[in-house]
Amino acid sequence: MTTTVGILGGGQLARMMALAGASLGLRFLVLDNVKDACAGQFAPMLMGDYTDLQVLGDFMQRIDVATFDFENVPASSAAWLAERKPVYPKPRALAVAQDRLAEKSLFTELGIDVPPYRDIQSLNDLRNAVRDFGMPCILKTRRLGYDGKGQFRIRTEADIQAAWDTLGAQVERTGLILEGFVHFDRELSVIAVRTPSGAFRAWPLTENWHVEGVLSASLAPAPVTPSVHEQALAYARQLADALDYVGVFALELFNIGDRLLANELAPRVHNSGHWTIEGAETSQFENHLRAVLDLPLGATDVRGVSCMLNWIGAMPDPTPILEAQGGHWHDYGKSARAGRKVGHATVRADTPEQLAAVLETVGKQLNRSDQVAPVIDRLRKDY
Amino acid sequence: MTTTVGILGGGQLARMMALAGASLGLRFLVLDNVKDACAGQFAPMLMGDYTDLQVLGDFMQRIDVATFDFENVPASSAAWLAERKPVYPKPRALAVAQDRLAEKSLFTELGIDVPPYRDIQSLNDLRNAVRDFGMPCILKTRRLGYDGKGQFRIRTEADIQAAWDTLGAQVERTGLILEGFVHFDRELSVIAVRTPSGAFRAWPLTENWHVEGVLSASLAPAPVTPSVHEQALAYARQLADALDYVGVFALELFNIGDRLLANELAPRVHNSGHWTIEGAETSQFENHLRAVLDLPLGATDVRGVSCMLNWIGAMPDPTPILEAQGGHWHDYGKSARAGRKVGHATVRADTPEQLAAVLETVGKQLNRSDQVAPVIDRLRKDY
Ligand SMILES: Nc1ncnc2c1ncn2[C@@H]1O[C@H](COP(=O)(O)OP(=O)(O)OP(=O)(O)O)[C@@H](O)[C@H]1O
Ligand SMILES: Nc1ncnc2c1ncn2[C@@H]1O[C@H](COP(=O)(O)OP(=O)(O)OP(=O)(O)O)[C@@H](O)[C@H]1O
Repeated sequence: MTTTVGILGGGQLARMMALAGASLGLRFLVLDNVKDACAGQFAPMLMGDYTDLQVLGDFMQRIDVATFDFENVPASSAAWLAERKPVYPKPRALAVAQDRLAEKSLFTELGIDVPPYRDIQSLNDLRNAVRDFGMPCILKTRRLGYDGKGQFRIRTEADIQAAWDTLGAQVERTGLILEGFVHFDRELSVIAVRTPSGAFRAWPLTENWHVEGVLSASLAPAPVTPSVHEQALAYARQLADALDYVGVFALELFNIGDRLLANELAPRVHNSGHWTIEGAETSQFENHLRAVLDLPLGATDVRGVSCMLNWIGAMPDPTPILEAQGGHWHDYGKSARAGRKVGHATVRADTPEQLAAVLETVGKQLNRSDQVAPVIDRLRKDY
Repeated sequence: MTTTVGILGGGQLARMMALAGASLGLRFLVLDNVKDACAGQFAPMLMGDYTDLQVLGDFMQRIDVATFDFENVPASSAAWLAERKPVYPKPRALAVAQDRLAEKSLFTELGIDVPPYRDIQSLNDLRNAVRDFGMPCILKTRRLGYDGKGQFRIRTEADIQAAWDTLGAQVERTGLILEGFVHFDRELSVIAVRTPSGAFRAWPLTENWHVEGVLSASLAPAPVTPSVHEQALAYARQLADALDYVGVFALELFNIGDRLLANELAPRVHNSGHWTIEGAETSQFENHLRAVLDLPLGATDVRGVSCMLNWIGAMPDPTPILEAQGGHWHDYGKSARAGRKVGHATVRADTPEQLAAVLETVGKQLNRSDQVAPVIDRLRKDY
């Protein structure tokens, strides 16, 4: 009895999911709206629009269970599929995570602190909210944002009009939300997983560094106090239970001193969890599939310390990473394009000092000392 | 510039190679003579006879470099391909490894001890050799044997005629060899890898247990004396250099006290190296591909202690392994069939005691205490 997992979206997350699921004896079918989606290099693929019922029907017939590699799956398509086959995470969890306002309301309801936020319907709303929150603050689309897209940082009075000119037209389509700017000490994420039967596991916290709104580097386990660690994991568990969540998700958090503010819930395997492939006993990709199939979850224990470096736009020379002790290369098989996530590397080491030393070498060789600098700094100062 | 690796043979070794090579940004094309070869679930596949020049021509056109997932690739096909594209390991290394007599001559030439052996051309040769070696001894085909197939154990006078009746007809086709029976303390294998530029790495030794000539369990790192370890690695290096070998290979050894006798050279990734997927920094599959592409080799350091259990004939219930701390499941996506290798599991632990405890539980739950018993015994007595 072969089980086929259908994945909506055929990017690198689908690709790494299929690669991880092979050993569980699973088959995959990927649906994407472009022909050369990179998951198609290692899994059978259907091409078509995510809202085309003909395509969805064909997809549905050939799979046993469906999941996603991106959170902006049209709600109607997720619902249509869910009436016919199990779909995990369930459309409701997806709907909440797709909407920054619903997400923040849920966080608040569960007693999870969030940055100041307000629903924005008009330029007037925006002016009032900026006045109340103070500057800087960030205008974001409620829906369809990713990798910092659909955001405008308001630093000056003049930015208010500029932000409205850029995003105001989205009021009807995606909605808008204003957030107060958080002067965080660090950004953290919890990668966690829950099964239909309610089993729950989380990997140790990850610290993340963004450049221009896009993840640049991750370090795990993050050097945080036990109380921050426990708090973050408790939040993740509360959220997962409240949403009857199934699969892997990331809870992104801002950390200031001992405080945690929830930024967002990513209802899928997450870029900040890529280090789990080599750095943990079980990867986020395998555990996502175990959850979706209601199998026992694998251990989330770490193996030493890992740093993930994102490759944006184009792949660098692989040699320094391949030569590095504990260096692991991940080329997604995509063509180069500005701003595109084309690959990543994970460097794993037994100790923070060893990891810092390898990162220093690799950073120099790749001419990317800037990318590794904050990670090295953390490794040398906070472990 | 995408590189496509062609793999002759589409079994589990090709499958795990493709899964490991994805992260290097490689594409694959698998050639197999059956339509449902399991590697085809995760890599594009061509079906056809390995000696059909039409098929080989098509295959050759679409790849940049070729390698194998089984050692019995027809020599003429390997040679034909090697005239047109790089083929690793090179046909000469393949030819030596395909022939037990050539293999043992090379071992001897390099000063590597082997069990007593003799080329057998007739029933008379066989009688004389058995008399000289004493019983038990083993008649084997020189070529085309695998998983203990093409072997006959001679324990009594009557077995001589029976062995000849069974294998005598192979004299012309595959040749025959008689080997003295080695009363070994343990079976070991070295998994090693060499690049075209001569870089060489080996994983720590693996101890192996066979049942009816087929690998049943492996344990790594094997608890051997430093001198045995060094000797084995030195043999592997000598062999690799002598053959100008490129890629991963396994050197199978019998260990008696402090002595090592070479059994055979498997010119490919090897069943006794499957534990490297979770138990080492770099897996044999990834390092094979790195070698074939002349990339820097990855670290072969181990992570704790690992035991690999082979699933022969049919997959057992996955639950005990999935629930076990450090349990990793590998279902090759094959249909069940007596004697067929359909999957394996690796259990990884930080210490020998932990591994023994997990294996004990798993053995009971799976009703396979016999399979894990020798491994547990070794873990409890010899570390
Ligand atoms: N309120 C805020 N205060 C301070 N920084 C913020 C705030 N909101 C976002 N950022 C910064 O911008 C980054 C991206 O923002 P956000 O997570 O909202 O975007 P996204 O498009 O959903 O990104 P991703 O897909 O990476 O999660 C954050 O990781 C953080 O560095
Ligand atoms: N000369 C010998 N003395 C003792 N045992 C032997 C001898 N030759 C083979 N065996 C036993 O039979 C097993 C399989 O033999 P061998 O390696 O020659 O076969 P094969 O068909 O090439 O197997 P594989 O593909 O697993 O390497 C060995 O691992 C060993 O357990």
